[in-house]
Amino acid sequence: MGRLRRVSPCWDTLPVDSTRRGFLRSAGLAGVGAGVLAAGGDRALADAAPPAAVSPAGSGVVPFYGKHQAGIATPNQEHLQFAALDVVRGSLADLRDLVRAWTRAAAAMASGRPVGPIATGPRPPADTGEAVGLGPADLTITFGFGPTLFRTAKGKDRFGLARHRPAPLVDLPPFLGDRLRTAISGGDLAVQVCANQPQVAFHAVHDLIRIARPVARPRWLLAGFGGTGNSTARPIPRNLMGFHDGTANIMASDAAALDRFVWADAPSSPAWMRGGSYLVARRIQIDLGRWDATSLDGQEQAVGRAKLAGTVLSPMPPDAHILIASPQQNGGQRILRRGFGYADGVDGATGAPVAGLMFLCYQRDPRVQFIPLQTRLSAFDTLSRSFLTHVGSAVFACPPGTARGGYIGEGLLG
Amino acid sequence: MGRLRRVSPCWDTLPVDSTRRGFLRSAGLAGVGAGVLAAGGDRALADAAPPAAVSPAGSGVVPFYGKHQAGIATPNQEHLQFAALDVVRGSLADLRDLVRAWTRAAAAMASGRPVGPIATGPRPPADTGEAVGLGPADLTITFGFGPTLFRTAKGKDRFGLARHRPAPLVDLPPFLGDRLRTAISGGDLAVQVCANQPQVAFHAVHDLIRIARPVARPRWLLAGFGGTGNSTARPIPRNLMGFHDGTANIMASDAAALDRFVWADAPSSPAWMRGGSYLVARRIQIDLGRWDATSLDGQEQAVGRAKLAGTVLSPMPPDAHILIASPQQNGGQRILRRGFGYADGVDGATGAPVAGLMFLCYQRDPRVQFIPLQTRLSAFDTLSRSFLTHVGSAVFACPPGTARGGYIGEGLLG
Repeated sequence: MGRLRRVSPCWDTLPVDSTRRGFLRSAGLAGVGAGVLAAGGDRALADAAPPAAVSPAGSGVVPFYGKHQAGIATPNQEHLQFAALDVVRGSLADLRDLVRAWTRAAAAMASGRPVGPIATGPRPPADTGEAVGLGPADLTITFGFGPTLFRTAKGKDRFGLARHRPAPLVDLPPFLGDRLRTAISGGDLAVQVCANQPQVAFHAVHDLIRIARPVARPRWLLAGFGGTGNSTARPIPRNLMGFHDGTANIMASDAAALDRFVWADAPSSPAWMRGGSYLVARRIQIDLGRWDATSLDGQEQAVGRAKLAGTVLSPMPPDAHILIASPQQNGGQRILRRGFGYADGVDGATGAPVAGLMFLCYQRDPRVQFIPLQTRLSAFDTLSRSFLTHVGSAVFACPPGTARGGYIGEGLLG
Repeated sequence: MGRLRRVSPCWDTLPVDSTRRGFLRSAGLAGVGAGVLAAGGDRALADAAPPAAVSPAGSGVVPFYGKHQAGIATPNQEHLQFAALDVVRGSLADLRDLVRAWTRAAAAMASGRPVGPIATGPRPPADTGEAVGLGPADLTITFGFGPTLFRTAKGKDRFGLARHRPAPLVDLPPFLGDRLRTAISGGDLAVQVCANQPQVAFHAVHDLIRIARPVARPRWLLAGFGGTGNSTARPIPRNLMGFHDGTANIMASDAAALDRFVWADAPSSPAWMRGGSYLVARRIQIDLGRWDATSLDGQEQAVGRAKLAGTVLSPMPPDAHILIASPQQNGGQRILRRGFGYADGVDGATGAPVAGLMFLCYQRDPRVQFIPLQTRLSAFDTLSRSFLTHVGSAVFACPPGTARGGYIGEGLLG
């Protein structure tokens, strides 16, 4: 085990957003807390908190066409459906036709329209229909290409794309503590669906999987809820460990940070990827049984924050999660996170719910962003080492957006 | 295979709600459809439909205390978490203490309060914290007792409760086509959590499972979304087959139908169950690959409705789902349904999403309601026989409500 040098954090060495907002919140809550904690503790404090505005506007439309794909620099929606598919037959032309059809379908659904006619009489409907009447619900659909699309694990260049593989689209190295399952890792193609209505999200991934037949078939499909904060438009979300999450995230509205940290550009990325971004997807299981049995002090030391108020601890333990993950500890690098909680039945061994974080992060180059960050977290971070297990992993190159009449990835497949 | 007598349905032999509302809707949509179908088909029709108001008021409170448990005659919320637990140790007194603690926790969460202090310093928090700030979100928590609580499968009367088992709480018989999995069937105790915010729902089931330790541990835990309609307050929901669902349901506001069909009473139910209800929970998987490849005509014939407009077919095929399920075909019996869609990864064999319906129904006596109904459906209904597989099953006696200071099931355990 490596040892971390002792650091003495102060307000302005911590993530800017986190610190400023945490401090303000702290100041405000301290005033409330002094009275209500005396009058009845946490319950009174919770009562004093305003109810959340969870922004489920069914009528919200996020434009599909544009310079960048929607669903990256978009305020996080409440629901996720994420599918990874493998191309199982066909030529480059078939792949192109698939992505063209997906683009048309995604644009239609983002506007609240079905992907095709339903009143088809003797033929199967061209839209499965479960979202009719539900509105667009801020639906975004984001497509990505995995390393195996360029060259299979066995080295085969199926589509003649190997020479176009972007340098930042590396295979992720193994990290300490990884317990990856093949069945929920990798994939040739990624479809990230986010929406503020769960059935709108399911419908989109359902129809995109259906449309992909017989060229591609899903390798894995995972749902999530409760998006990590990346906007200032609503209360700061909490993750399934009960802590604020996303305060130090790149905000969807921060154009300068997006240009610097998120959008792919020359010279590292080829022309077809400029304006796109690299997505690292990790399924991170929380040992909820162990976490729930940990003292509040232990939880707060592991995270580096007060659980209720969200304020940064002082002094900060040198192995606290938010310190190890901070830009100051990572050469100034940041990533755009879109994290979602997931729940998946019961752990037969512990009797705790199987639950965790579907961690999606976008960046300009994983080689200098996610990979060094995760290397540090897996080695030094108490939260990661004691309570989290990475069970799924994938990386995708998400091309830039397209204009009406074009299709996602046209610079590569055209 | 049995044969069904030929019937000639007319409007007033079909479910009253369904027919009247279907007819009105049909008339309305026919007017719209005639114009827009000519002008552009389904897309235009979908555009013309109003966006849904999915009612996710974070601040909504459904009272926990009352004559009946909340979550039965409550308009369906958007999200479900359903846990079945087994009692693994302890005495009747331990069981009573557990249900008392659950009652207090449920009442607190339904009001938007944590179940206990979070600022606990050297001890684990008494609330896991992920719902702090999210509001009550119309949370309801409904508890039930399974047949095995009264006598185990091996015949053991662990708690001296066997003589109090209500006659309507029968073990369900096998039905044609059942492919039940033990791991998602049965259970001594049921916890049905419904809410209009997914993390509020998860938090509630998470903390109730935590509180149950070490007396009870979860046997299965399933999530769902998109509740079947049982109120007139919002657009009629569609199930994952894309059809309207719930139009013939008992509406949460229909007190006469609730008294007649839902609330347990003398003489069939013992005193401790009067004002309660019997819950049948079935996990019903849809063969989405096959369904999506079926013609619109085939889908509509199987269901008995027009897919887009929701109108009842005329003539009605004798083996259509809504006909076989109608009260007229079942001695006038009705059930209160609370159905939720679920999605659970990918079917490796077909490449389709694993998805279906978490079917929850409440009734006065399953012996004359669910059991005969499901016997008919499993034998005659085209939809059930060709596209649906029951993979999970359970039945529970859900006691009446309680007053502040009391606890759920006090008439049995007190």
